[in-house]
Amino acid sequence: MRIGLLGLGTVGAGTYRVLARNQSLIQARAGRQIVITQVAVRDLARAAAIAGTDVALTTDPFSVVTDPDIDVVVEVIGGTTLAKALVLRAIEHGKHVVTANKALLAEHGSEIFAAAEARGVAVAYEGAVAVSIPIIKALRESLVANHIEWLAGIINGTSNFILTEMRSKGLSFDAALADAQRLGYAEADPSFDVDGIDAAHKLCLLAANAFGSTLQFQQIDIQGITELQVADMAYAEQLGYRIKLLGIAKRSDAGLELRVHPALVPVEHLMASVEGSMNAVMVKSDAAGITLHYGAGAGSEETASAVIADLVDLARTFGADAHQRVPHLAFQSQALHALPVLPMTELVGSYYLRFDLAEGDGDGVVAHALEQLVQTGVEVQSHALLLHHQDRARRAFTILTRPTRLAKLMQAVNRLQQLPHELGAPTVLRVEQLT
Amino acid sequence: MRIGLLGLGTVGAGTYRVLARNQSLIQARAGRQIVITQVAVRDLARAAAIAGTDVALTTDPFSVVTDPDIDVVVEVIGGTTLAKALVLRAIEHGKHVVTANKALLAEHGSEIFAAAEARGVAVAYEGAVAVSIPIIKALRESLVANHIEWLAGIINGTSNFILTEMRSKGLSFDAALADAQRLGYAEADPSFDVDGIDAAHKLCLLAANAFGSTLQFQQIDIQGITELQVADMAYAEQLGYRIKLLGIAKRSDAGLELRVHPALVPVEHLMASVEGSMNAVMVKSDAAGITLHYGAGAGSEETASAVIADLVDLARTFGADAHQRVPHLAFQSQALHALPVLPMTELVGSYYLRFDLAEGDGDGVVAHALEQLVQTGVEVQSHALLLHHQDRARRAFTILTRPTRLAKLMQAVNRLQQLPHELGAPTVLRVEQLT
Repeated sequence: MRIGLLGLGTVGAGTYRVLARNQSLIQARAGRQIVITQVAVRDLARAAAIAGTDVALTTDPFSVVTDPDIDVVVEVIGGTTLAKALVLRAIEHGKHVVTANKALLAEHGSEIFAAAEARGVAVAYEGAVAVSIPIIKALRESLVANHIEWLAGIINGTSNFILTEMRSKGLSFDAALADAQRLGYAEADPSFDVDGIDAAHKLCLLAANAFGSTLQFQQIDIQGITELQVADMAYAEQLGYRIKLLGIAKRSDAGLELRVHPALVPVEHLMASVEGSMNAVMVKSDAAGITLHYGAGAGSEETASAVIADLVDLARTFGADAHQRVPHLAFQSQALHALPVLPMTELVGSYYLRFDLAEGDGDGVVAHALEQLVQTGVEVQSHALLLHHQDRARRAFTILTRPTRLAKLMQAVNRLQQLPHELGAPTVLRVEQLT
Repeated sequence: MRIGLLGLGTVGAGTYRVLARNQSLIQARAGRQIVITQVAVRDLARAAAIAGTDVALTTDPFSVVTDPDIDVVVEVIGGTTLAKALVLRAIEHGKHVVTANKALLAEHGSEIFAAAEARGVAVAYEGAVAVSIPIIKALRESLVANHIEWLAGIINGTSNFILTEMRSKGLSFDAALADAQRLGYAEADPSFDVDGIDAAHKLCLLAANAFGSTLQFQQIDIQGITELQVADMAYAEQLGYRIKLLGIAKRSDAGLELRVHPALVPVEHLMASVEGSMNAVMVKSDAAGITLHYGAGAGSEETASAVIADLVDLARTFGADAHQRVPHLAFQSQALHALPVLPMTELVGSYYLRFDLAEGDGDGVVAHALEQLVQTGVEVQSHALLLHHQDRARRAFTILTRPTRLAKLMQAVNRLQQLPHELGAPTVLRVEQLT
């Protein structure tokens, strides 16, 4: 099977390296040789240093995707403009495509998958979501018997690294981000990662595969981690919780929940132990129950591992009828539906509220706040008066609510702030039990 | 695709129920209807109560496996005698087979897989190992690009439930076993589970898939949990460790390590958080790094989920050439080797030693023991004098060693016990960092 590789950056070079190093092992498993015969790059000299002279190098990626000698195109250049044009051209020319490009598929997947189906080729993308975790395969093949109820993922390694640094070292978001950038865990422009966009791209693909819904990236409610304060991580820890950036997709009779946001997770929960740049996805299904899938969320050879797994899948079914392959989004395409996505404000959940107390604030202020909440119909699960983890002169009043519709909670919070001599605006974070 | 189901016990009934309940969902994914048309049982009346009248019931399983109308046989009767005869007969008659029978495959898999390959049919067995965890698929398909270095699994739910009970409630093994039996987590004769045999069956299958070795059940070094004392769980906790029954397979240049035994795992390690009857398998690969796969290790619908996933895989490739299917043991059969299995005594690892101190034992006894160990070449990582968790008048002297060949450690321990006025025989447990 002859591969045309588009891009020889971190992932492309890793793919080239792993395929070369483990060639005999891969062939002993796949029963067929998988050979990269062409590589499209921007810098030929740099590429020659990585790929040597065994492979044809070109600066024209379109010549690769249209070459009759190429069976499969591996797209690892990233971005959504050139990558989209190349992938569509490759499909048009009857090539299978393997990509690790989550942005491309989350935003243009419907068009790309439809084109591939019409042309009878496959677009494989295990490397696009939580790279070394075989979660696309788990959803599409292993959990195929199940009605999937929900999934929750720590699916952005950069954010998880920053949160782990903040909590374990008591750093501010800015300081932890600077660490992450220095260590190569965050890019110079980290906004895709810390604003939750990257996690939302992955969640979009996960949700479609879990629920048979079409790709609905625009419908995802997204909140990143840039506003998170280390004080809340410390307060949460005192209450038995750890704060994680989660991507959550949940199906109910009313529709789909699709949301990315920081949330409090019980500290003894497995998801709370997913630290540093690692990723994990937990899935709740009706027959299989809870499964957790954990591994690296990024990295050169980690992504290569997923890309090559896709190549071997294609090698095994090479020449097979299209219906013998696993559908792009787990379900036969005619069975996909644009399930309605519920607005965040209408979702029912438990919340953590943190009010800073001013020096003179006494029990009366706290009692008054509780009374106001209860009057608005927000039920309180527990509350606590906690000392700031560094400055013991500062205190905060925290509340964990019972399940409440967010709109009602926000109404209560607004009302609270309109009263004279009251507490300032609280920090509001969702609490997830994940059971 | 027409299925003949052998057995309508826990797993068989679960398979029947999930296929019926999620029929439209499964068809929307698989693109093909999967129908159980015949069921072989011992008790027709009981079977009719479960399966109704839509399906042909028989007490003759051989009539099912030889029926020309049957495409796939699902074997969930268990045991290794009748099950083996039925599976081989089904293969002979050109049926694909799906089974969740780990004992059958660990002990007779080589013969069964060879027969299937010769006849051009598939034997699928995702449900045989850590049922709701898609670990066979992960090893055979997702990690296909990787040189796998080692894997470690908590792969017996009964044992893990008992260990969790012992630790969290301070129960003895016998008391925790009685609890497990009362709650349905352990069978009346629990020996397969608590003696480590069941875990070894699963490890045998995992190791073959990871390393391209033939099935070598007889070569596995097996130690169960029946001798474990709750005091050691408490001492281990004081030292920052939790005791788990692990199945470990590791490849080195010298050969394979294949072992099932209780081991100390760092308490902050994810594997330490796998509690109750849950299972997990951690895999270390050269490209993908560490991945962890977690889920239920037993259960009616949990196993059914894996059985049906195998059925859908077969449905998708139904009629395909044999080479388009994934090889039974991950590697093309001609690439399988009987890799040499290293004896436990030759393995190098860190160990926990616990000596009970008698009332009069002073620092001199402890110092002497340490001196003797060091003289035999055993390097000590750390040692501690710990109080018994319940009886504070009792004390123990614990040692964590540096990596040592077990034979040398045993020699040192024997020497220690031959000296007059010395410490009694210690409890010796392996320590695993799993990184």
